[in-house]
Amino acid sequence: MAWDRVLAEIAAAVSPHRGEGTVADYIPALAAVDPMKFGLAIALGNGDMHCLGDADECFSIQSISKVFTLSMALRNVGERLWERVGREPSGSAFNSIVQLESERGKPRNPLINAGAIVVTDHLVDQVGPDAMIAELIERLRRLSGDSSVHIDQAVAESEARAGSRNRALAHFMQSFGNLHNPVEETLAAYFSHCAIAMTCRQLARAALFLAFDGCDPTSGERMVTGESCRRVNAVMMSCGHYDNSGDFAYRIGLPGKSGVGGGILVVAPRRGSIAVWSPGLNQAGTSTVGSIALETLVRATGWSVFI
Amino acid sequence: MAWDRVLAEIAAAVSPHRGEGTVADYIPALAAVDPMKFGLAIALGNGDMHCLGDADECFSIQSISKVFTLSMALRNVGERLWERVGREPSGSAFNSIVQLESERGKPRNPLINAGAIVVTDHLVDQVGPDAMIAELIERLRRLSGDSSVHIDQAVAESEARAGSRNRALAHFMQSFGNLHNPVEETLAAYFSHCAIAMTCRQLARAALFLAFDGCDPTSGERMVTGESCRRVNAVMMSCGHYDNSGDFAYRIGLPGKSGVGGGILVVAPRRGSIAVWSPGLNQAGTSTVGSIALETLVRATGWSVFI
Amino acid sequence: MAWDRVLAEIAAAVSPHRGEGTVADYIPALAAVDPMKFGLAIALGNGDMHCLGDADECFSIQSISKVFTLSMALRNVGERLWERVGREPSGSAFNSIVQLESERGKPRNPLINAGAIVVTDHLVDQVGPDAMIAELIERLRRLSGDSSVHIDQAVAESEARAGSRNRALAHFMQSFGNLHNPVEETLAAYFSHCAIAMTCRQLARAALFLAFDGCDPTSGERMVTGESCRRVNAVMMSCGHYDNSGDFAYRIGLPGKSGVGGGILVVAPRRGSIAVWSPGLNQAGTSTVGSIALETLVRATGWSVFI
Amino acid sequence: MAWDRVLAEIAAAVSPHRGEGTVADYIPALAAVDPMKFGLAIALGNGDMHCLGDADECFSIQSISKVFTLSMALRNVGERLWERVGREPSGSAFNSIVQLESERGKPRNPLINAGAIVVTDHLVDQVGPDAMIAELIERLRRLSGDSSVHIDQAVAESEARAGSRNRALAHFMQSFGNLHNPVEETLAAYFSHCAIAMTCRQLARAALFLAFDGCDPTSGERMVTGESCRRVNAVMMSCGHYDNSGDFAYRIGLPGKSGVGGGILVVAPRRGSIAVWSPGLNQAGTSTVGSIALETLVRATGWSVFI
Repeated sequence: MAWDRVLAEIAAAVSPHRGEGTVADYIPALAAVDPMKFGLAIALGNGDMHCLGDADECFSIQSISKVFTLSMALRNVGERLWERVGREPSGSAFNSIVQLESERGKPRNPLINAGAIVVTDHLVDQVGPDAMIAELIERLRRLSGDSSVHIDQAVAESEARAGSRNRALAHFMQSFGNLHNPVEETLAAYFSHCAIAMTCRQLARAALFLAFDGCDPTSGERMVTGESCRRVNAVMMSCGHYDNSGDFAYRIGLPGKSGVGGGILVVAPRRGSIAVWSPGLNQAGTSTVGSIALETLVRATGWSVFI
Repeated sequence: MAWDRVLAEIAAAVSPHRGEGTVADYIPALAAVDPMKFGLAIALGNGDMHCLGDADECFSIQSISKVFTLSMALRNVGERLWERVGREPSGSAFNSIVQLESERGKPRNPLINAGAIVVTDHLVDQVGPDAMIAELIERLRRLSGDSSVHIDQAVAESEARAGSRNRALAHFMQSFGNLHNPVEETLAAYFSHCAIAMTCRQLARAALFLAFDGCDPTSGERMVTGESCRRVNAVMMSCGHYDNSGDFAYRIGLPGKSGVGGGILVVAPRRGSIAVWSPGLNQAGTSTVGSIALETLVRATGWSVFI
Repeated sequence: MAWDRVLAEIAAAVSPHRGEGTVADYIPALAAVDPMKFGLAIALGNGDMHCLGDADECFSIQSISKVFTLSMALRNVGERLWERVGREPSGSAFNSIVQLESERGKPRNPLINAGAIVVTDHLVDQVGPDAMIAELIERLRRLSGDSSVHIDQAVAESEARAGSRNRALAHFMQSFGNLHNPVEETLAAYFSHCAIAMTCRQLARAALFLAFDGCDPTSGERMVTGESCRRVNAVMMSCGHYDNSGDFAYRIGLPGKSGVGGGILVVAPRRGSIAVWSPGLNQAGTSTVGSIALETLVRATGWSVFI
Repeated sequence: MAWDRVLAEIAAAVSPHRGEGTVADYIPALAAVDPMKFGLAIALGNGDMHCLGDADECFSIQSISKVFTLSMALRNVGERLWERVGREPSGSAFNSIVQLESERGKPRNPLINAGAIVVTDHLVDQVGPDAMIAELIERLRRLSGDSSVHIDQAVAESEARAGSRNRALAHFMQSFGNLHNPVEETLAAYFSHCAIAMTCRQLARAALFLAFDGCDPTSGERMVTGESCRRVNAVMMSCGHYDNSGDFAYRIGLPGKSGVGGGILVVAPRRGSIAVWSPGLNQAGTSTVGSIALETLVRATGWSVFI
């Protein structure tokens, strides 16, 4: 692959759109981010890394962290996890509570807020909130080969203050017996992992195991079983972008997960993983410029799984 | 690929499950089908075809026809189609009317009943119901290289008699201005294409263009643009199995569409297309034995797009 | 009661509001009505009648007819009717289809469209659509003591042409087995009784039995049992104005039923019945000026059941 | 009125049904109540009181307290209250969260849990939770002429422990800005007033002002305006029994409010007020034996507002 040409095409494609979209403003720490930022990193199985723009600048990965907590939970308990959370698209917004009522407290999938809270609750169950977060950070540092991965405490605290909707989801699930720990304990862990700060380079590198059937190709270490890896990718394809998932599947054609910090993580099976970041969001909460970058990348590389 | 071994593995895997699931019984013609039937056909880009069991027996393709009407509609008008129908998973059953109310008569995607009725209405718009059906049959005959593809009139008439729910959907969309032709005219065409009878061999062959970016690899004829082809595949992946789509994506990992006649059509991009048929259905209306066959095939071939 | 003073108060109260609200325009025959029209008639148990304005002008009673079909159905079968229709407020708009899906084709109450269609279907069951309409008209003529009560055929035909939403409701209920006659047959009867033309004087007179425990006080003829009469009044109080019923209960405090033709029928138990008409509607489809007139009447007479 | 005969009829009617229904068991304090209990008290405008059975035994009034908090809130701010809570039936269960999502955090009416929490929040706004509860208790003692009215702290603490669903409602409304105080503060007040213990005699006496246009007829003291009184009665009629309100309106025909402790409070405008208590509940959470008692009372007295 002529990566210089691919990167140049991406740079040209995003250039006229820089700054488009709406920066998340429900907490001050996110609202303050410069909307002109744009970074991209492509991690390949052979260890090569191709970067563009602000690829080494930290941003709040937000909901992208759900991919890593889901992987951890599947590693820990495997298929039993699905007793507490589904794996189907919800057809609703990321924070909708409607389906939880008719489906008696079982969220549709682990990538909407309710589902990710259940996954976090499951991890907290086993070791408590502090050890769970410590283990997650430690794992991300090892996978990304960079010990600077950390939690942005200011963001975590802002999330906790603005967290009424997530508290509603958690108490609601608790009323159906689908939350095992005290709401504030599980939510503290949830707000913490949503506040993880990473660079595109770190993020692409950390997710590489998902492109290689669950094994990190550089270390050879197995992170999850091949089955779990396929499950994570399938869930990202079906549910990774809330009620924009179908459109993302068409435009990008790769399993992915967006975060309201403007990051998108994408997995290209057997090829590599890509992280892109640009703060302006579309109506479904996916980075506008990030999507354009990924669309261009997929066109240039032919990596869509649907071609 | 050692196809003999693959077929043998599939035959061995399905053998203990033959007859499982529930045969659709809402119309007599479907209820009468022998639940022990099982057929499978794999069409490859080089023209090769690998078959198993009752691969040359006709069955009612039912909702699988929605893939072909969607392709025709995209060929005819391209992206304008999406003004009348969405492309996101619905999170609801195949015949749900709930979302139509809050979303003002615009169905979530073209593979649920409401969406497929709009697609049919769109095709009827252009040439009338009879010519539209004639064109569809002619196209399927050409693609499958078999002039015996036909409509089972007994099934079509049964569907029409049992069609209260689809009539409700059609009148409901009409009340929002999203049906252009008389309800009974559009539904006659809809019931007709759902009643198309094909064999696994014909079906796999007819869908091969979806695995090759919109071009039939044997004739070289372009059926739809590469963009439309990706769109169809993405919609099949996200929405092809109603509220079982997420699970199908994990287990099979390929774009597919199920029909209540027990057929499943699956597209393996750049490799080929597969049709399987076995009448017993799971709760979501997908063939139980057919799913097992596909799961085995994907494991044996490594064709999942998520590995 | 000093009726001259009461009527004068009402006339003074409505005067500055004449013409307010929005005239129904979904069919031409309703859209053409002069928005300045206002009529009111009060029928008392002793046979006295007090009128104001255009009390002798015909208007389309529309959904007010549902009160009479409900009374007829209860007279015919009594409590068995409730196997097919509920008697609780719906919390939704008059033509909503959402609850029908989760409640498997059983409408919430007989005063929303779906419920009234079931009631009509029930009456059609017994004698066929023509005889059912003939019997209803005959009954209304007898009750009102006026043989000019009739169906406005132009309105009935317009309703039938614009009836997509009601067709959707009917086919949907049919798919659950809750419609016994062909959809178009039941709907023809439904559209006919919604198109009944009456004057305020006729309407108030015809409903007097509801204020006197089911017996017409002037003829002494029992129309429905005391139990059924209470049921009709209770349903009118709870459900007579769709999602404006709670507010109507507060402002007027009497069982009532509105129609999109601008009429409102109100029952004052042991006192009398009132019909008011003025075409402009509020957002819930209740006559704006009619509501002001009734509010004034209730304040002047102390007839609210909640005082 | 021959009250001895009325009471004898009621006693005879309930006798074969004593113990029917299901005692609420979501908190131990309610589950422990003897299901055979039955008490009834009728308070008349002239100060007379007619009692039956366990009319002087304390029970947990639970949701009946919502009638008194609503009256207090209307007294304090009048119509402005309706900016934060509706006054229409919900068509849903008492603790449903679904409508809150589409209606952006504004509950349908003040007698479902979400609405009552908003009313409580409004009262807490003004004086804080402790003073608000103190004022409510003081008012109930004065109205009932009995200083033994109190909060059952064991019940209040049980409610708080079992309160996940109500916490979900409160946090959800807070996310829309419709809760002004900290969730736990408002809920502490809410759980306290639901845990008020009163006898039938005290309760009937305390609600007498609602039957007399807002004035306590024995003291002459105005509790709420006539308008507010009518509003409370109308809301009780439309919404007092959740999704059983329509049936209650028919069977009893009087504004009322049920509580899961087995109490029902009913208002007979211009006549008096009635409190009945028996712990076994029907599916909608209304006392089974209490309903039979009220039905008999209304038949014997002719007090239904619909006759």
